[in-house]
Amino acid sequence: MSNVDPRRMADAIRILTVDACERVGEGHWGTPLGAAEIATALFTRHLRFNPADPTWFDRDRFVQSNGHGSMLLYSLLHLAGYAHMPLSALKTFREIGSICQGHPERETEAGIEITTGMLGQGIANATGMAVAEAYLSHLLGPGIVDHRTWALVGDGCLQEGIAQEVISLAGHLRLGKMTWLWDDNLIQDDGGVEQSVSEDVDARFRASGWHVQRVDGHDIEAVSAAIAAAKSDPRPSLIACRTVIGRGVPGLEGTRYAHAGRLTRENTDAARAALGWEGEAFAVPDDILAAWRMAGRRAEAEHAAWQARVAALPEEKRALVARLQAGHLPEGWQESLRAYARDAAGRSEFGIFFSGEIVDRLAAAIPELLSGAPDLEAATKHKRSLTAFTAEDRGGRYVHYGVREHAMGAMLNGMVAHGGVLPVGVTYLVFADYERPTFRLAAMMGLPTVFVFSHDSIGIGRNGPTHQPVEILASLRAIPNMLVFRPADGVEAAEAWELALANRTGPSCLVFPRQKLGPARAAVTVGENLSARGAYVLAEAEGGARRATLLATGTEVAIALAARAMLQAEGVPTAVVSMPCWALFERQDEAYRTAVLGPRTARVAVEAAVRLGWDRYVGPDGGFVGMSGFGTSGAEDALYRHFGITPKAVVAEVRARL
Amino acid sequence: MSNVDPRRMADAIRILTVDACERVGEGHWGTPLGAAEIATALFTRHLRFNPADPTWFDRDRFVQSNGHGSMLLYSLLHLAGYAHMPLSALKTFREIGSICQGHPERETEAGIEITTGMLGQGIANATGMAVAEAYLSHLLGPGIVDHRTWALVGDGCLQEGIAQEVISLAGHLRLGKMTWLWDDNLIQDDGGVEQSVSEDVDARFRASGWHVQRVDGHDIEAVSAAIAAAKSDPRPSLIACRTVIGRGVPGLEGTRYAHAGRLTRENTDAARAALGWEGEAFAVPDDILAAWRMAGRRAEAEHAAWQARVAALPEEKRALVARLQAGHLPEGWQESLRAYARDAAGRSEFGIFFSGEIVDRLAAAIPELLSGAPDLEAATKHKRSLTAFTAEDRGGRYVHYGVREHAMGAMLNGMVAHGGVLPVGVTYLVFADYERPTFRLAAMMGLPTVFVFSHDSIGIGRNGPTHQPVEILASLRAIPNMLVFRPADGVEAAEAWELALANRTGPSCLVFPRQKLGPARAAVTVGENLSARGAYVLAEAEGGARRATLLATGTEVAIALAARAMLQAEGVPTAVVSMPCWALFERQDEAYRTAVLGPRTARVAVEAAVRLGWDRYVGPDGGFVGMSGFGTSGAEDALYRHFGITPKAVVAEVRARL
Repeated sequence: MSNVDPRRMADAIRILTVDACERVGEGHWGTPLGAAEIATALFTRHLRFNPADPTWFDRDRFVQSNGHGSMLLYSLLHLAGYAHMPLSALKTFREIGSICQGHPERETEAGIEITTGMLGQGIANATGMAVAEAYLSHLLGPGIVDHRTWALVGDGCLQEGIAQEVISLAGHLRLGKMTWLWDDNLIQDDGGVEQSVSEDVDARFRASGWHVQRVDGHDIEAVSAAIAAAKSDPRPSLIACRTVIGRGVPGLEGTRYAHAGRLTRENTDAARAALGWEGEAFAVPDDILAAWRMAGRRAEAEHAAWQARVAALPEEKRALVARLQAGHLPEGWQESLRAYARDAAGRSEFGIFFSGEIVDRLAAAIPELLSGAPDLEAATKHKRSLTAFTAEDRGGRYVHYGVREHAMGAMLNGMVAHGGVLPVGVTYLVFADYERPTFRLAAMMGLPTVFVFSHDSIGIGRNGPTHQPVEILASLRAIPNMLVFRPADGVEAAEAWELALANRTGPSCLVFPRQKLGPARAAVTVGENLSARGAYVLAEAEGGARRATLLATGTEVAIALAARAMLQAEGVPTAVVSMPCWALFERQDEAYRTAVLGPRTARVAVEAAVRLGWDRYVGPDGGFVGMSGFGTSGAEDALYRHFGITPKAVVAEVRARL
Repeated sequence: MSNVDPRRMADAIRILTVDACERVGEGHWGTPLGAAEIATALFTRHLRFNPADPTWFDRDRFVQSNGHGSMLLYSLLHLAGYAHMPLSALKTFREIGSICQGHPERETEAGIEITTGMLGQGIANATGMAVAEAYLSHLLGPGIVDHRTWALVGDGCLQEGIAQEVISLAGHLRLGKMTWLWDDNLIQDDGGVEQSVSEDVDARFRASGWHVQRVDGHDIEAVSAAIAAAKSDPRPSLIACRTVIGRGVPGLEGTRYAHAGRLTRENTDAARAALGWEGEAFAVPDDILAAWRMAGRRAEAEHAAWQARVAALPEEKRALVARLQAGHLPEGWQESLRAYARDAAGRSEFGIFFSGEIVDRLAAAIPELLSGAPDLEAATKHKRSLTAFTAEDRGGRYVHYGVREHAMGAMLNGMVAHGGVLPVGVTYLVFADYERPTFRLAAMMGLPTVFVFSHDSIGIGRNGPTHQPVEILASLRAIPNMLVFRPADGVEAAEAWELALANRTGPSCLVFPRQKLGPARAAVTVGENLSARGAYVLAEAEGGARRATLLATGTEVAIALAARAMLQAEGVPTAVVSMPCWALFERQDEAYRTAVLGPRTARVAVEAAVRLGWDRYVGPDGGFVGMSGFGTSGAEDALYRHFGITPKAVVAEVRARL
């Protein structure tokens, strides 16, 4: 440690923050100024990181869950010496193309572990990171992945429901290497927190098995001591740090205005005067910067020791560590899926079981695969041979999430962001709405999270409309940079899984029915993934030039095939196009798309969901057989008849257009 | 009370449940059998209801939040004597068109207060009902609306994040007339609850200011005594009732299988034998049925006294009660909105402020209007002259929800289902994802809930992509039976509000920007609501037959108008269509739709969101100017230029199609 007063180091965060906010004319400065000492205690004494190797596999993970206070993170990363966070970046805060976006956008080279800003997400991501760490620590043995996970959290995050889901689950799973630092400043956007909260937050955490401490958040020594105590406790820890929002700006600190009120030059001048700070905007005195840079080098020896430990591993394990860190799957995973496709060709099976079988095969070959579902293990069948990941058994590979879909989605993102694990999370498609905020974040970050869904339509039967998605497929397809697959049989299921795992720049959704699915493809040509083009001609028209094209996905491909048989029998040459992934089809060239859709043919789409979006492929005058409202209870077959999703209805739509 | 053993009354629920489940071959019988005594204690001794007047304004509200156990509710309603729940209905359990759907579907005439089954929703709906009651009780004075709200809740509901949001808020608001009966049976779908929960649930509730009791859930006297104690405590109450899931089916009770395992004739025979029950399927002995019917008439005198009290009210107040009960707004509300439209014509204003002004005007004339936003009061401006609804002041009309969007959505639904209040809930559009499950439920129930959103696009500016919706409009438009409005100025804002309030059979979303909006319509003709047709020609082509049609919504209408001016100057007769509500446009006849869209014209849509769905109006070959991915931080104007959402880009798209 240097001789520089750590309080001056904290003030450096304050100055960089107010200068950046004043420069651009906006920004949430209350959190950085209030949490400056908390962050200084953590970053200069406890957090294990190495700015020279930002993606060090065994670094501690730090998540700023209260992402609006992003200048805290940017200041810390700059001060600590991340090359990708130069002072010039801070001067572009909130500008187009800046690494210093309004809320933190994942950029691991710069030390930004995850995108935050939608409240509650960051702490749930952190919980996923802690699960990843615990599993990898077990898998790889001592000293390879063995780090802590930290989150800075505000009142807003703790009020979100997702917070309780992960508080409860983290306590249950005893994620003792995770610590949350709560910037307990009593102020939120509406003003005093007491306007909407009366609960005893500490007691809430204790009720879930957390270690809870309470400190003065402006006392670096006290915060540091609490962090040390948290590290030695086997439970996840909450450190409630009482702070003054916006501390350091005279007249504004401690007020609602300090959350994100506009700072003038007068304000920043007053802050400088109050803090006894000299120099021009953005200037940090050399001794203080040097102290920060020294803090950024604290873990150099540990980093070198870790590298030596990895180098000394037996070759097989060393290769495993390298593979996991690179995010590569083991050799042969694609072949395994192609073999599955060949086995599945011609088979009919409960749709979600295909995915369960695939995941079971993958799990056998991919030790880093972790599965799980929120209290739907029996219905979704993605546990099979796996055992539970628990507080006692970190080698288990199935997370019993409880009925906590939102937590699961965010934890999946956290695990993927952590790296080294391949998490699979499954739930009913209708509950996708509960985890929806996590999809857009995965897509925005380009995280290859795989979200699996079962029970994808009225085909679920008698559970009724609350459990029958009709609008969800369209809502998923609306999300940019996400692949949504709805396979038509076991072959397409394997293809979709292959594409999802190969997709490294964004999330994928794999959507399966509860009811029987397939067969659609009778034979599989080795090495040919037809789903890769998004849509393809499954059955070409026969007996002349194509006059009708039927487009379908999933379970409705069988209906399209039956309708085609009827039309062919009537002498109407009809093609069936299976369309498992719209987004991939959009990437094909015009010629392919036109060939598949059939120029100048009558086009009818069939999907047990709403029409929204299908006009792109059938045209506004094209036919559609599907749902226009919500479902009802009833037997699966009866429901399809009730809602008119039948081969006969498809034929009628075609006839009307010939 | 009758001389019939109340335990036999509880067993009647068991027999009806197992017979209905056996008959249809499925259903969740574990909850009805486990909670039979809890329900018997409540319905026969405490719940104030009158099957002869199911929609009695001052009835207690009962919500079965664990909706999968719906046969409990159907049995209770049948036994208590609701005419709309005859025995024949129970014999159609889970069949198409049955009132006895797999999960309860709102049907107030039959005593089903709200649709439940998506876990966690029911308790949040109940919290909204309790808020409505508290406000109306204050508004109308003693003895008019003065009832209790009850919810039966299972482990799944309590694990959902939304549960904590309302536990915390209900404790904060001290909703002492709400009681939750927790069917604490230690089993969930995955098996033992201990697989995913270790928390001290009772302590969690206590930390939020709840009154908590713990009883043997099969001891009717104990449950009844606990209910009595809950009624006399000023805090919201949790009664943890320890039960055995599926109690009464030998060999299966207390197991995971009892959640929803298939019941055979052998099982129901064994249950009959174990319970000492005689008779054929669905038969309830006369004395037991009579005792239940007597229980259903317990409140007749109270009901009559209430009617007398209402009849004795001063005429003005009596009219108010009648109006609130009927769900009518006070005379003149439409005129007030039309006056606002005239005032707003030609004005430009921060978009969400228009809605805030409108709500302020409405609030002045509509005493039952309650507003609120989750910690976004300053940014969304829907508080204005209203004061806070608090534990101390039930006359306040603005709910500070805290950062609890999901709770807000479900509470709005609960308030609307309760009736008598007009709740308005506002948040940023990007947070719509957090409350999304509540939209589908409102739409499914046909509840006229009004969801208001601000900050609807990249136009929010520097807060960056986490806060910039691009996919949300499409995802909302995918929901059946919901009107989504994106007004282009203050005139359309008033029109949208008028249409939303007039829409009594489903929810409406009103979507506004943060940034300046309008003017679009210069003048307003009295009595003419152009938005009512969903889309209309805002500016017709001039100087010849229309060659181009520009379609736009919200803030992008101004861009379309600017593009039109450029095209007209080039001699291209161009029309601008404002399209505030797709769903209403879909209801227009073919001739109107064709006239608006312009047959054989080049069509280009402009909306700062994804294209999904626009092909229906512009065709697959039509032009689109909007977003294809997520946004970025930057100044509003710079962002529009950065993403090419400009008049120039619109003109280029048109030119390419002329």
